[in-house]
Amino acid sequence: VTAPTAHGETFLAEIREQPKALLRLIEQASVYEEAALAAVERGPHIVRLVGHGSSDNAASYGVYAFGIASGWTALRDSISLSVYYGAKLDLERSIVVALSQSGRTPDVVAYVERARERGALTIGVTNETDSELARAAELTLPLAAGPERSVAASKTYVNQLAAILLLAGAVAGRTSEIVDQIGRAAESMAEALPGFEDAVASVAGAFAYVGRMYVIGRGIEFATAREIALKLTETCRVAAEPLTSTDLAHGPIAALDPLFPVWTIASKDEALPTIVEAARRAREAGATLVASGNAHSEIDGAAYRLPVPAAPSTLLSPLLSVVPGQLFAAALASAKGLDSDHPVGLTKVTLAQ
Amino acid sequence: VTAPTAHGETFLAEIREQPKALLRLIEQASVYEEAALAAVERGPHIVRLVGHGSSDNAASYGVYAFGIASGWTALRDSISLSVYYGAKLDLERSIVVALSQSGRTPDVVAYVERARERGALTIGVTNETDSELARAAELTLPLAAGPERSVAASKTYVNQLAAILLLAGAVAGRTSEIVDQIGRAAESMAEALPGFEDAVASVAGAFAYVGRMYVIGRGIEFATAREIALKLTETCRVAAEPLTSTDLAHGPIAALDPLFPVWTIASKDEALPTIVEAARRAREAGATLVASGNAHSEIDGAAYRLPVPAAPSTLLSPLLSVVPGQLFAAALASAKGLDSDHPVGLTKVTLAQ
Repeated sequence: VTAPTAHGETFLAEIREQPKALLRLIEQASVYEEAALAAVERGPHIVRLVGHGSSDNAASYGVYAFGIASGWTALRDSISLSVYYGAKLDLERSIVVALSQSGRTPDVVAYVERARERGALTIGVTNETDSELARAAELTLPLAAGPERSVAASKTYVNQLAAILLLAGAVAGRTSEIVDQIGRAAESMAEALPGFEDAVASVAGAFAYVGRMYVIGRGIEFATAREIALKLTETCRVAAEPLTSTDLAHGPIAALDPLFPVWTIASKDEALPTIVEAARRAREAGATLVASGNAHSEIDGAAYRLPVPAAPSTLLSPLLSVVPGQLFAAALASAKGLDSDHPVGLTKVTLAQ
Repeated sequence: VTAPTAHGETFLAEIREQPKALLRLIEQASVYEEAALAAVERGPHIVRLVGHGSSDNAASYGVYAFGIASGWTALRDSISLSVYYGAKLDLERSIVVALSQSGRTPDVVAYVERARERGALTIGVTNETDSELARAAELTLPLAAGPERSVAASKTYVNQLAAILLLAGAVAGRTSEIVDQIGRAAESMAEALPGFEDAVASVAGAFAYVGRMYVIGRGIEFATAREIALKLTETCRVAAEPLTSTDLAHGPIAALDPLFPVWTIASKDEALPTIVEAARRAREAGATLVASGNAHSEIDGAAYRLPVPAAPSTLLSPLLSVVPGQLFAAALASAKGLDSDHPVGLTKVTLAQ
């Protein structure tokens, strides 16, 4: 039983707890190595990632973590294709990575049951190792984030990223290197948190009347764009849409105006030039720019900046670059008088399919 | 050389031309059958769909067309993973289906070049059979939509859906059945067009001051939600975001209010109950509902209805259900004094990466 807290205090406390949650995860590295061994035995390797909400955002990251660290094709699989339409796909050589904080998301559990029947190796990644997902999947990987009470996910999302990277790294025989990198990212995050909180406080006030926003990322950082947009939407009632830099150029650029801010996640990696170019076009269209990420200084003409420390490697950047977005959402919700712990119409476990 | 036309006349003329464009496509069925034979020779079968903008929306449909019609796994592949990050994926057993109206989208062409080097069977689907994409890909499938001059795509999108279905159907040895179904869908579309135009005219006026909107679809119809949202964004400057019914429940439901309309695509298929439930929740949250699709009558409490005729099969529904959205975008742009033929900041061929 926890004492009642002021609006948004639980969400904020869980964001601040993220460095410790990451350290708890890497203590589980040997369990991840065992699952990686089982995955390597299957082949050729197709990784099917499934999840909803923040878990689906983490799945976006998995496409890059498995592609870059393991050279394996990973996809965010369609749940409805199997569960509703009953498609008869060949899954014998597939590895399912099912992501659910609670382990209770109904159609994720249904997907895992069907995939296991059809011969896939099923791995549940969950914060609740005694859950329906854990029972449905052949192997269970603990998120070890500790109980998450705020409806808006934070530490379970960051631990999902780390869990995916740990599994992809273990597949490539690089567990100790990845464990070390996650540990160093946790340290950087702990050092950066007070600065992040100061920085977002001064920006959030200017956004109290913003109704819509684009959040731009690409490749490794597209998951971050999706997760920041989701935090802003659920806790601040802003219609924030995540877009890749190329999505923006193929249509939405036409909708921009000075009242339509664009949040850019600029991290040092091979996709950065596309983000710099998208930001330039957004600015030309009159949008107010927020530049974040460890390469924010590459973005010209930003009205606001939220710097992020360099990561131990490009695949670690998303663990750090999401944090200013989480804190910004908490600060903006507070500025708008909204309770980020309990957004209207949402519950911690979403039973809708 | 075409005579100059009034604002939006080209877009509207190309929407009206869609039934004829579909009939031109099915004349090419034998070319699609040859490509399908080449695809069947590869195995096990992974279809990698790539494209940007409307082409990427059509790719969303491909996941269901190949999954349901052929039992093959198809994915919207990440272009940046190969082109920017240089991931070394095993592509020897992959079939690439690259979608580009102009055949000139730079990173789609770059993706095809790399995939072909790595052993994939590469198929370009394009309206321009003498283009960079056609030269880069091993096989070229003509969209046969006729020249598209409006910046906002319409007939090339609908023909992309039909092209994907024709290829997926040919793989399953069902070419003549699919050709017949596309022909019947074209006929239904031609009959429905005048009624669609009347229906959208009476709804568009009420939306002149709408700044943001969600468009909800799932499974087979998620592509439709994406494409309608893109039309509204690029031609009407509305921040319209496509969401699956489950995406809505996992966060965005919290952002809804009576000034935030939700457009639901309700078609008769196995995912319909999730759309009905999402619409119910959106209405409870106070949103104004637009109900469209051939099962719109299953949606309770809609403020506006845009009925769509029944399709020859569930996989054909998206060819018809996108049309009221295209026409609504044209009508709303006109009501707002915007030129839907030439949205601000956009060009017909997007060279940004």
